[in-house]
Amino acid sequence: MRTIDWRDGRVVIVDQTRLPAALRTLELTSVDELVDAIARLAVRGAPALGAAGALGVVLAVDQAERECWDDERLVAQLAQLRAARPTAVNLAWGIDRAASRLTQGREAVLKEALAVLEEDVAANRSIGARGADLLDELLAKSSAATQGIRVHTHCNTGSLATVEWGTALGVVRELHRRRRLGRVYVDETRPLLQGSRLTAWELDRLGIDYRVVVDGAGPTVIARGLVDAAVVGADRIAANGDVVNKVGTYPLALACARAGVPFLVAAPESTIDEATPTGLGVEIETRADAEVIEWSGVRVAPAGARALNLAFDVTPADLVTAIVTEGRVIRPEKLVDG
Amino acid sequence: MRTIDWRDGRVVIVDQTRLPAALRTLELTSVDELVDAIARLAVRGAPALGAAGALGVVLAVDQAERECWDDERLVAQLAQLRAARPTAVNLAWGIDRAASRLTQGREAVLKEALAVLEEDVAANRSIGARGADLLDELLAKSSAATQGIRVHTHCNTGSLATVEWGTALGVVRELHRRRRLGRVYVDETRPLLQGSRLTAWELDRLGIDYRVVVDGAGPTVIARGLVDAAVVGADRIAANGDVVNKVGTYPLALACARAGVPFLVAAPESTIDEATPTGLGVEIETRADAEVIEWSGVRVAPAGARALNLAFDVTPADLVTAIVTEGRVIRPEKLVDG
Repeated sequence: MRTIDWRDGRVVIVDQTRLPAALRTLELTSVDELVDAIARLAVRGAPALGAAGALGVVLAVDQAERECWDDERLVAQLAQLRAARPTAVNLAWGIDRAASRLTQGREAVLKEALAVLEEDVAANRSIGARGADLLDELLAKSSAATQGIRVHTHCNTGSLATVEWGTALGVVRELHRRRRLGRVYVDETRPLLQGSRLTAWELDRLGIDYRVVVDGAGPTVIARGLVDAAVVGADRIAANGDVVNKVGTYPLALACARAGVPFLVAAPESTIDEATPTGLGVEIETRADAEVIEWSGVRVAPAGARALNLAFDVTPADLVTAIVTEGRVIRPEKLVDG
Repeated sequence: MRTIDWRDGRVVIVDQTRLPAALRTLELTSVDELVDAIARLAVRGAPALGAAGALGVVLAVDQAERECWDDERLVAQLAQLRAARPTAVNLAWGIDRAASRLTQGREAVLKEALAVLEEDVAANRSIGARGADLLDELLAKSSAATQGIRVHTHCNTGSLATVEWGTALGVVRELHRRRRLGRVYVDETRPLLQGSRLTAWELDRLGIDYRVVVDGAGPTVIARGLVDAAVVGADRIAANGDVVNKVGTYPLALACARAGVPFLVAAPESTIDEATPTGLGVEIETRADAEVIEWSGVRVAPAGARALNLAFDVTPADLVTAIVTEGRVIRPEKLVDG
């Protein structure tokens, strides 16, 4: 099962707002529907957003044909799609990949978009293998070498965040496949609980031993020696190796640095944004107060309470042990030194 | 209004499980009722637990009289009260204070218990004044000196955590009284949301400008330069200055150290446990999985999901700028050096 796919002229996605209670798919036939699905996080995760961007261009081309759009309208719709979420670079990257074929006609655009999906699947597998190799290497002299590698992770970076395998959770899956995995600790990832709702659901289906912890407890789990490595994804990686990822990632990196625990980032090359020199330059999406101060529509804070709902944080490159992509292992420390 | 008080032979508490939706009091007439109220956090916060411990001894004496307990039964009931929550030292301290008068009769026990309450109120005021003075001193050369001090805090350390004023939030209240306070950022404090439910409620009633943030965002708020100081409470302070406090405190301390932002702990002397050399020796309460994976009885993780629900964390002394008590300012760095 793919999290996002193209079927009979439609973008088909797993509706992640319904998990873990129900596994439902949505069929999207217009750019507006896709923008809405992205904004309310029915589809989410940087690599999945890359696929959504690419397939969105096909939707736009078909809609332009059906509804007789002029070029201006088409460009405006693609701009709207690009703006659906500002932080992950993959969405814009996916749009640009598919849109680069616009002059060659609809079939070329579709082919390019489907290539984005196939490449994501292949890239995920490479990231998983490379990440598992690296962890074995980094932990060769620790108890994890014989007892299995205990991993801390954050948010959801599994099949639900990608086309079908996962980035950081892809590394976890590969360790599991190799029978090298110990227990997984996953932060619940407030406010939208992608950890307890989505990652726990995936780990459960895979038969992996895991524990959910509240976000504030992640650094303590690391400090108490319960994990051998943290492995997280990324929404954007700046040229200097600063990592923008789901809010709550930075405290894990701080705790890992203090505890001497490796902190790995697993992401496709498309997440690296060479045009952004450092993490300071990345726009951090601020989302609605209600995500923080309400719960399933029930207010948990007093009437009139306000929130600051930053969706992402920036982990400085010096706290990152390694960035693992489908093509290489980047040691940000060496970027800084170099 | 006091969070905990003695009235007509009963312990009267504000039922904190009902806030912010409703302000209700509970009247407790037996040790079992008090133990239950403590266990389900109807009354919580280290200083309030000290008061609860002391008043609990009076309840026990009255109940012994009423129900003809022998001494063995009385001792067993006090042991049960002491074990209601293991991490905060104040509960045991309050019990010991009042129990030290047992041989002098019921009125002496009551008098000692009421003294614990009065001393807490006075101590809180001293902590507030001393903490506000210290922040003014530490931030004299920053923009906070003219624009107001922006404070980050965690959990609830206000009137609801004490008898009537607050420890860390007492410092905030004192800054507000002096017109020296900028905006307050408060972590929601999962799993039980003492920040968004209780602290936001208190700040709201006091007319203080505040924003609720998810726990994972606290370190980022600090890294982005939005706060001038973090001020938190403590459940137990080891002899070396290690601070045991609500889980999620440690990541704030890590972020403050990296950002060069003062990290203050405000707590009464009774929180300092000279018998515990370091934070490593403190038992960390592990609470029920359901607090993490359910929400108001609705499951948010898949069926069968397990949690690790650590209620507290340990902030090493070297990350603590100062501990402010009613009697002194302790610089843990100097404890370590000395």
